[in-house]
Amino acid sequence: MRILTFLLLWLPLAVAADPLASWNDGEAKQAIIEFVATVTEPDSPDFVPKAERVAVFDNDGTLWVEQPFYTQLAFVLERLRELTDDHPDWRKEQPFKAALEGDKAALGEAGMEGLMQLLMATHAGLSSSEFADIAADWIATARHSRFERPYTELVYQPMLELLAYLREHGFKTYIVSGGGIAFMRPWTERVYGIPPEQVVGSQIALDYKLVDGEPTLVRKPEIAFIDDKAGKPVGIQRHIGRRPILAFGNSDGDYQMLEWTSAGPGRRLGLILHHDDAEREYAYDRDSHAGRLDKALDDAETQGWTVVSMERDWANVFPAAPQD
Amino acid sequence: MRILTFLLLWLPLAVAADPLASWNDGEAKQAIIEFVATVTEPDSPDFVPKAERVAVFDNDGTLWVEQPFYTQLAFVLERLRELTDDHPDWRKEQPFKAALEGDKAALGEAGMEGLMQLLMATHAGLSSSEFADIAADWIATARHSRFERPYTELVYQPMLELLAYLREHGFKTYIVSGGGIAFMRPWTERVYGIPPEQVVGSQIALDYKLVDGEPTLVRKPEIAFIDDKAGKPVGIQRHIGRRPILAFGNSDGDYQMLEWTSAGPGRRLGLILHHDDAEREYAYDRDSHAGRLDKALDDAETQGWTVVSMERDWANVFPAAPQD
Repeated sequence: MRILTFLLLWLPLAVAADPLASWNDGEAKQAIIEFVATVTEPDSPDFVPKAERVAVFDNDGTLWVEQPFYTQLAFVLERLRELTDDHPDWRKEQPFKAALEGDKAALGEAGMEGLMQLLMATHAGLSSSEFADIAADWIATARHSRFERPYTELVYQPMLELLAYLREHGFKTYIVSGGGIAFMRPWTERVYGIPPEQVVGSQIALDYKLVDGEPTLVRKPEIAFIDDKAGKPVGIQRHIGRRPILAFGNSDGDYQMLEWTSAGPGRRLGLILHHDDAEREYAYDRDSHAGRLDKALDDAETQGWTVVSMERDWANVFPAAPQD
Repeated sequence: MRILTFLLLWLPLAVAADPLASWNDGEAKQAIIEFVATVTEPDSPDFVPKAERVAVFDNDGTLWVEQPFYTQLAFVLERLRELTDDHPDWRKEQPFKAALEGDKAALGEAGMEGLMQLLMATHAGLSSSEFADIAADWIATARHSRFERPYTELVYQPMLELLAYLREHGFKTYIVSGGGIAFMRPWTERVYGIPPEQVVGSQIALDYKLVDGEPTLVRKPEIAFIDDKAGKPVGIQRHIGRRPILAFGNSDGDYQMLEWTSAGPGRRLGLILHHDDAEREYAYDRDSHAGRLDKALDDAETQGWTVVSMERDWANVFPAAPQD
């Protein structure tokens, strides 16, 4: 009986698979393992107490697919089409015209700010909880055009493993995304294990008031915060109030987040995912409308950032499709 | 050996003191204990999963003393006096004039927004880390005029016990204060056990840029957010993204936070601290410049909020002074 208990207790450890099984052996995997060991080993000169083990992750293109365009844009487009009959002017004005016509280049030019404009126009007047329901419903049914899978299955398996690995080592994992905070929060806990209070993102303004006597948070047609580029360190400071020791991004929009993280004292780890795998996912960098990676790629070596090659460093890209 | 182990394991429980020892038996203490039991008992129809056990606390006048004026104002006044020689115009303009002359009535009129103006004027241009150092240094040495103790010892012992009690029952405790987030964060973890990422407060705008080549968050002379009144539910949504199930305040500035919390589905607990103890602390409500409690007191019964009487419900007010 005792021996059985003993065996049962230890069995999971004895047969434990590599927690980063989807990462091929190589510099990137080695850098992650070595960094985590160094900051978590109590006798290490670079030891970091648990409370300070803050790891920040971009979302679009870092944790899930951002091509052929941002997932949130697909969501906005569907809302736009539903609402166009009430707004005939949208057929002439940018960025609405580009969105309705599927003009990716013009949409790319409009950037994250254009995306926020579309978001505002299609979502003003809704309450926070109405919006959360609409976003949750959409994400549960929408499918990616190329992979024909729900977007929440087009998250990167190696990143899911990395998030879990960091949390097992006492890290607190955060999303710091240019995407809308209210669009992400309904599903990040289920998909990434990241709860709503650890999601930092762009925000439209909220108004608290009684609607038909009911306390309500109403979403206003006004941008409150854009969590992109230099906004990322600001968003980190506002929400977390601690400087991260690990940052993972994939585009120039993550440059300042990586820079702010890396320039802190003690050991730091900055990582950039390079999409160089057209076969399994996409290959893009300097000329892409979504997730342009140019200056950060040039400066990676000088800044000490590890460039992760999707093709070389990842054994798997997406999780296996669920069995029916 | 086994019996000894058994005894050692259970001893702490057997002799455990009342975790709310500084609360006198009465309706308030009973309401807290009953609420926590109800939402944490797995078989209860009102059971709330751990992740949703969000408890929010006002700071000034709820967790620590706010009379004869907000502690942060004492901090601002000292900074103002230090900087006045460089700003002769402050002797004529409000709210600077009132602050320098110690005109409490005029300062009270200026309210939280006036406080933010003073804060901006005295702290613009500093980096986030410089400001954190200055705030930490000040709080370590400043003394309250009446009690002649550091402000961080003028926190309420019953509230420290309540925070710990809630955390022991799986709650996540947050500060949601009209005070400046950057003023609170350097000491809330040590004093309340509330880490920086669980502090919601008023904020001035931040600018991320390189200063002498060093990545820096610079505090701008511009209010980014006022976390007071209707701003409190907004701040809660921004930072936490979940609706609290328990809210504790002491003034009309907490009305909307209490209202938003209480109106949610399922069991909720709203509490208001009534300062009615001039002997041990202060007695004030409807006519006070700081922490005015008027409408919330009138509506407490209708809204189902528990009014905590400092005089009646608290056996102790402050923690015992540390022994030298």
